[in-house]
Amino acid sequence: MKRSGKELKYQFDLNPLLKRLEELKVKRVGLVLPEGLKIYADYISSELKKHGYEVIVSGNFNYGACDVPSFEFEEECDCLVNFGHASLPIESSIPMIFIEVDFVFPYMELLKDNIDSIKKEGKKVGLVSTVNYVRELPKVKEYLESEGFEVVIGKGDIRVKYPGQILGCDFSSASKVSDKVDFFIFVGEGRFHPLGVAISTEKKVFAFDCDGIYSLNDYRDKILKERFGAIFRAKDSKKFGLIVSSKKGQKRMALAKILKRKIEDSGFIADIILMDEVSPDKIYGFDYDSYVICACPRIGIDDAKRYKKPLLTPKELEIVLDGKEDYFMDEIDQNDF
Amino acid sequence: MKRSGKELKYQFDLNPLLKRLEELKVKRVGLVLPEGLKIYADYISSELKKHGYEVIVSGNFNYGACDVPSFEFEEECDCLVNFGHASLPIESSIPMIFIEVDFVFPYMELLKDNIDSIKKEGKKVGLVSTVNYVRELPKVKEYLESEGFEVVIGKGDIRVKYPGQILGCDFSSASKVSDKVDFFIFVGEGRFHPLGVAISTEKKVFAFDCDGIYSLNDYRDKILKERFGAIFRAKDSKKFGLIVSSKKGQKRMALAKILKRKIEDSGFIADIILMDEVSPDKIYGFDYDSYVICACPRIGIDDAKRYKKPLLTPKELEIVLDGKEDYFMDEIDQNDF
Repeated sequence: MKRSGKELKYQFDLNPLLKRLEELKVKRVGLVLPEGLKIYADYISSELKKHGYEVIVSGNFNYGACDVPSFEFEEECDCLVNFGHASLPIESSIPMIFIEVDFVFPYMELLKDNIDSIKKEGKKVGLVSTVNYVRELPKVKEYLESEGFEVVIGKGDIRVKYPGQILGCDFSSASKVSDKVDFFIFVGEGRFHPLGVAISTEKKVFAFDCDGIYSLNDYRDKILKERFGAIFRAKDSKKFGLIVSSKKGQKRMALAKILKRKIEDSGFIADIILMDEVSPDKIYGFDYDSYVICACPRIGIDDAKRYKKPLLTPKELEIVLDGKEDYFMDEIDQNDF
Repeated sequence: MKRSGKELKYQFDLNPLLKRLEELKVKRVGLVLPEGLKIYADYISSELKKHGYEVIVSGNFNYGACDVPSFEFEEECDCLVNFGHASLPIESSIPMIFIEVDFVFPYMELLKDNIDSIKKEGKKVGLVSTVNYVRELPKVKEYLESEGFEVVIGKGDIRVKYPGQILGCDFSSASKVSDKVDFFIFVGEGRFHPLGVAISTEKKVFAFDCDGIYSLNDYRDKILKERFGAIFRAKDSKKFGLIVSSKKGQKRMALAKILKRKIEDSGFIADIILMDEVSPDKIYGFDYDSYVICACPRIGIDDAKRYKKPLLTPKELEIVLDGKEDYFMDEIDQNDF
């Protein structure tokens, strides 16, 4: 499996994909890869070409199953293959095949070394993860139970495929079992997902990754302080830009139209701005006072500091307009589309 | 015409647009603006809303009439209005309205002050410009004739609307009259357009802008040196990525397929990579050795230094594969699509 200049870090069993392609009787395959897997584009493409398929690779960024560039591909391809994400209910004019990729997670010893530190948090723990590590959860559950914990793995709503799985826009696997647990452990990489669990459940959350197991409390407090800062800065805005992404699973146009009306009813100006990838340089030239992200919730929170103007989530806009005080995490709802 | 915090630098006569919208009997308008005009999005939108239109603003970058985001807009809008560019022959499922914007060009005195410096270049001069300044050409022509020059303004091919107008991918207004002139003057901003005239015609070219009137020779030599550097670096490539943009007027898919075959016939690997906006960070994750830009020619030349890997134009790829020595400027042909 060694190749010139790079080694395959993830295991790609392409046989299920080849079987599925044969069933679909397609010829032209569109290949969609998130950043970390783009390096395998030429390898996967070569394998598919050996089996007689024509391949077109997507060069766009790909952040999730929501992020499907089908508008560009339906003319060129008979199906889209997305690596690294679990399927989402998204309508599509060509078939979409999702090939999940399991990442290596060799950190159980770190949990064992630090098990005493979480014993003081309670007996009942909820486990959550992203799709790349969700198959680690039974192992973690088994160990925690051997240490005397009661372990709960929640089943999320229709947008989430696996028990315990959360998305950056859907924390239902956590919030549905929040009443039954003392605290949560998030198994996986990055801080945005456990942050979302912490804000949406108001429970204590531990992240468990290569750095060990550590509380998200301080990070949550820091982010909430930043968010109320953005809300405060947006208070004097007269002109709002409502940013909608054209990415199929993030295109919350119905929500944007509701918010537009709400802003106009409050006596202010609002325009809907439709774009593909949302980025600071695309907003730079406009003259709106504040922006509301009707796309991936993560943009409004994780990326907000890269923008000069206040960037709000739809929930934060309600605080600005109505003076509400409770903070709610932005999650994507099927009614948003 | 003064507005809070900004002054309208360009004259927007929206009446022709309002008349056209009325004729089309549309309700929902998509508004597309290049970077320098995005600041007027809220003003134009407000004016249209006063007349009962629904407006959605494009947040994508917009670099020309070729750069039409209709794939995102046809669901939401009945027509697209693009400011700042002249129309191009592009098929579209919804009507496209192009509103040209004349930029101020108060530099005639600079030409007069330096007229002697160009008199030694010859008697016969060709005039070219971009759409924003093309209406200055008769004035410049009249003055040059009063100074004893013979002035030629060429008519380009079907993709170019005005005599003397050039695009970043079409220098036919210059090359068609190249035999009849001693040198060219380019009236307008930026160095890429006059560079294209210099390379495609091999004639001496002067740029005429706020900095006065100056020869492009040194700049052309510098860029050609860089281009042959990129060609040299690409010589050992085994894997080529052929970058196609999904932007309607730049989507040179037919060309990419021809080049793919050509690369494969030479014993190398080639994949077509389809993306919306072409940018260095989108290429970064891939493992190809060199890339070929089957989109706007400008990306392969003006932006090439922002990329780590060699970025070639289709013409430059031919030098790599066939060992040709003559350098040709990349221009977009209707057969490329």
